[in-house]
Amino acid sequence: MSYFADCLRAVREKNPLVHHLTNYVTVQSCANMTLAVGASPIMADDVAEAGDIAALASALVLNIGTLNSRTVEAMLEAGRRANAADVPVVLDPVGAGASRLRNETLARLLQDVRFTCVRGNLSEISFLAGLAAQARGVDVSAADQKRPLEEQAAIAQSAAGRLGCTAVISGAVDWVSDGRRVLALSGGHAMMARITGSGCMGTSVVGACCGAWDVPLEAAATAVAIMNAAGEMAHEAAGALGAGSFHTALLDAVSRLDGQTLEGRVDCRER
Amino acid sequence: MSYFADCLRAVREKNPLVHHLTNYVTVQSCANMTLAVGASPIMADDVAEAGDIAALASALVLNIGTLNSRTVEAMLEAGRRANAADVPVVLDPVGAGASRLRNETLARLLQDVRFTCVRGNLSEISFLAGLAAQARGVDVSAADQKRPLEEQAAIAQSAAGRLGCTAVISGAVDWVSDGRRVLALSGGHAMMARITGSGCMGTSVVGACCGAWDVPLEAAATAVAIMNAAGEMAHEAAGALGAGSFHTALLDAVSRLDGQTLEGRVDCRER
Amino acid sequence: MSYFADCLRAVREKNPLVHHLTNYVTVQSCANMTLAVGASPIMADDVAEAGDIAALASALVLNIGTLNSRTVEAMLEAGRRANAADVPVVLDPVGAGASRLRNETLARLLQDVRFTCVRGNLSEISFLAGLAAQARGVDVSAADQKRPLEEQAAIAQSAAGRLGCTAVISGAVDWVSDGRRVLALSGGHAMMARITGSGCMGTSVVGACCGAWDVPLEAAATAVAIMNAAGEMAHEAAGALGAGSFHTALLDAVSRLDGQTLEGRVDCRER
Repeated sequence: MSYFADCLRAVREKNPLVHHLTNYVTVQSCANMTLAVGASPIMADDVAEAGDIAALASALVLNIGTLNSRTVEAMLEAGRRANAADVPVVLDPVGAGASRLRNETLARLLQDVRFTCVRGNLSEISFLAGLAAQARGVDVSAADQKRPLEEQAAIAQSAAGRLGCTAVISGAVDWVSDGRRVLALSGGHAMMARITGSGCMGTSVVGACCGAWDVPLEAAATAVAIMNAAGEMAHEAAGALGAGSFHTALLDAVSRLDGQTLEGRVDCRER
Repeated sequence: MSYFADCLRAVREKNPLVHHLTNYVTVQSCANMTLAVGASPIMADDVAEAGDIAALASALVLNIGTLNSRTVEAMLEAGRRANAADVPVVLDPVGAGASRLRNETLARLLQDVRFTCVRGNLSEISFLAGLAAQARGVDVSAADQKRPLEEQAAIAQSAAGRLGCTAVISGAVDWVSDGRRVLALSGGHAMMARITGSGCMGTSVVGACCGAWDVPLEAAATAVAIMNAAGEMAHEAAGALGAGSFHTALLDAVSRLDGQTLEGRVDCRER
Repeated sequence: MSYFADCLRAVREKNPLVHHLTNYVTVQSCANMTLAVGASPIMADDVAEAGDIAALASALVLNIGTLNSRTVEAMLEAGRRANAADVPVVLDPVGAGASRLRNETLARLLQDVRFTCVRGNLSEISFLAGLAAQARGVDVSAADQKRPLEEQAAIAQSAAGRLGCTAVISGAVDWVSDGRRVLALSGGHAMMARITGSGCMGTSVVGACCGAWDVPLEAAATAVAIMNAAGEMAHEAAGALGAGSFHTALLDAVSRLDGQTLEGRVDCRER
C-alpha cells in the first residue's frame, strides 16, 4: 500500500490548485485544510468566473452544504468546464435527501457533470446513488452506524458502480470503492463528529489528492487515511482539552504529517 | 435553580437539530458551539428549502448580522413554517437601528413570525421593542454599560412584554425576562467582547436549549449561564495567551461542561 | 520611526469602526483581527445598507476574494458613499488578473472610487496598476518572490503613482509606497502563507490603522509592521505545533501586542 506516502508527496510537490464551490459554514476550514495538506485553495462562486477558474484548476470540489439558486448555476458551469478540461471533480452531497432543492440539484449535477469521486456519509451516498435512504440534518446519523459492515461495503460498491466514479463513505469505518475494489479504512476519532467541517475538510483533501494523483481510488483512500491519521494525532494532542483545541490540532496534524507517519497509521484492508 | 443542569442534560439527550439562517462572519463558530453544547446545527438559507428544513428542526435561529434581500425572504418563510410546526424561533437582531434595511426587516419579522426568544445587547433589544435607542456597529456600546442596572432590568422586562416573548439582554450583567419574571445573571468575562461571535454563539445556545426544554425563560437563562461559565473557564485556561486562544478555549469549555460545574458557577438572581 | 507605536495606540484609543465588504472564506479571521488590533468590525454587503454604513464608518475595506454580481454593486455604492464622507477606503484586489470578472470589477472600482490604500501581492498590485502580470490562484506565487528587490521596490512606487494612493505589496519583503517614498519592511514568517487569510487580515489591519491615523503611508507601514511582528511571535509561540496553532497564535499576538514590543521588532528601511 505504499501509494499513501507517494500520493501525499505528490500533493506537496505539485501543489495542486483546488477550486471550491462550497458552503460558507466550513469554508475557512476547507481552505486551511487544503493548505495544510500541501495544495492551494481558491474559492470563486460567481457564474461569470467559476467556469474560467475551474478550467485552470488542478481539481474542482463541489459541496452543496449551503447551496442557493445563484451558486447552483455556478456549480453546473464549473463542473462542465472542469470536465471539458479534464480537471477531476469531487462532489460532497451534504444533506442529500433533506430537501427537494438538494435532491433536484443533485439530479442536475449528476446529469450534467462527470464526477471523479463523491464523498459523504452512508445516508447521503445511498441517496445520491438512488439506493433508499433518509437524511436528518448534515451529521452522520446514528442509524447509519448500526448498519452491518457487510451492508455498508455493499452500498459503497454499488454506489460507485451506479455513479460511475469512486465513492467514499465516511463513518466509524470508512469505505472507498471504484465499483470493483472495496477498501475499508479504520482509524480517526469520534471527536471528528463533534466539530463542524470534518466531512467537508475530508472532501477538500480528496480534491487535493485527485489533483495530484491519477488513480482516483488511491487518491481517495489516501485522503481518508490522512484525515484518519490526523484525527488520531489531534485526539492524542488535544482531545482532553475539548472540541475547539481538537479542531486546531486537526489542522496542525495534517500540516505536519509526513509520509512515514501516515503509512505507520494507515489501517486499510481490501474486502 | 436546579433546572440549569437539567436543561443542559436535556440538550445532550435530545440532541436537537437547530436550523440557522445566520451571518457568514460567525457561522462556523455558531455551528461549532451548537455541537459543543450537544445539539446538531444545520444551515440552509435558500427560500426553496429553508421552510422545509425549519419545519423539521427542533429550533430555528434567525440572525440578521449579514442579511441581504435574498436571505430576508428565506428568514420570513422559515419563521412562518417553524411557527406552523410549533418549532421555537429565536431572533438575534444584530445591528438593530444601524440601517433602514435592518429596521424594516425586523419590522417584517416581528409582524409575520412569533418568536420564542430574542437575544441582543441593550441597544438592539431596546430598538427592537420600540424603546428609544441608537446603535453603533454590532458591538455592545460603552454607553449601554453605563445605564443603571435597574434601568436595564426594566428594559428587559418591558421589551419582553412588548414583544410577547422571552428577552435576553447581554452585557456585563445579562438580563432574562418573560415580561413577568426578571433574572439577572452575572459572570462571563470581558474578553468575550474581544472576539467576534460571542453574541451569535450565545444565540445558538439559546436555540439549542429552547429546542430541548419547554420553558423559554429557563432555557434562555440556562444558555446565558452556559456562556458565562464557559467565558470564565476560557479566561482561566487561556486568557493570558490572547484572543485567539480564548476563542478556542470557549468552545473547549462548552464541549466539556457538565451540569455540576455549570450549577457551581451560576450566579442568577431574580429581581 | 516612532509613529509605529503612536499609530497602534491611536487605533486602541479611537476604536475605529471598520466596515468590510469581503470574502466569506476569511471573514471571521478579518473580524477577529480587527478586534485584536483594537478596532471594531462591521460586515454589511447588501446594496440597500452598505452605503449608509460606509458613511458612518471610520474606514472601509473592499476585498474581492469571493465577489459576485450582487456584492460588486454594494462595493461600488459603499465606496462612493465613503468617498463622499471622507472615510478612507482600502482595497484588497484578491486574484487580480485571474478572471475577466475580477478584472472588470477592479476597473469599475478604480474608476468610481478613490482609494486611500491598496494591498496585495506583487502580481495583484502589478495587475491592478496596469503593469504586466499574471496571477495564479490567490496565493503569493513563487515567481513573484524571485523578482529582484529593486524591481519590487520600483513596482510598488510605480503602482502607487499610477493609482494615486498608497500601495502595499506583501511578500518576503513588504513594500509600502505613496509614490514618492518607498519603505521596505522585513520580518514576519513563511508560515503566514500556509494559513488562509494572512493577506486579508493584513488588509483589515491597514483599514484599522487608516481609520485612526491620518498619514496613509504611516498607517499602512504600521499595519505591515504589526502583522510581521505577530507572525514572528506566533511562530515562536506555536510554529512547531502546526498551521492551526499558528493561526490561533497570530490572533493572540496582535491582541497582546504593545507599542514597545512593536517598535522593538520593526525592521523598516527607506529605499
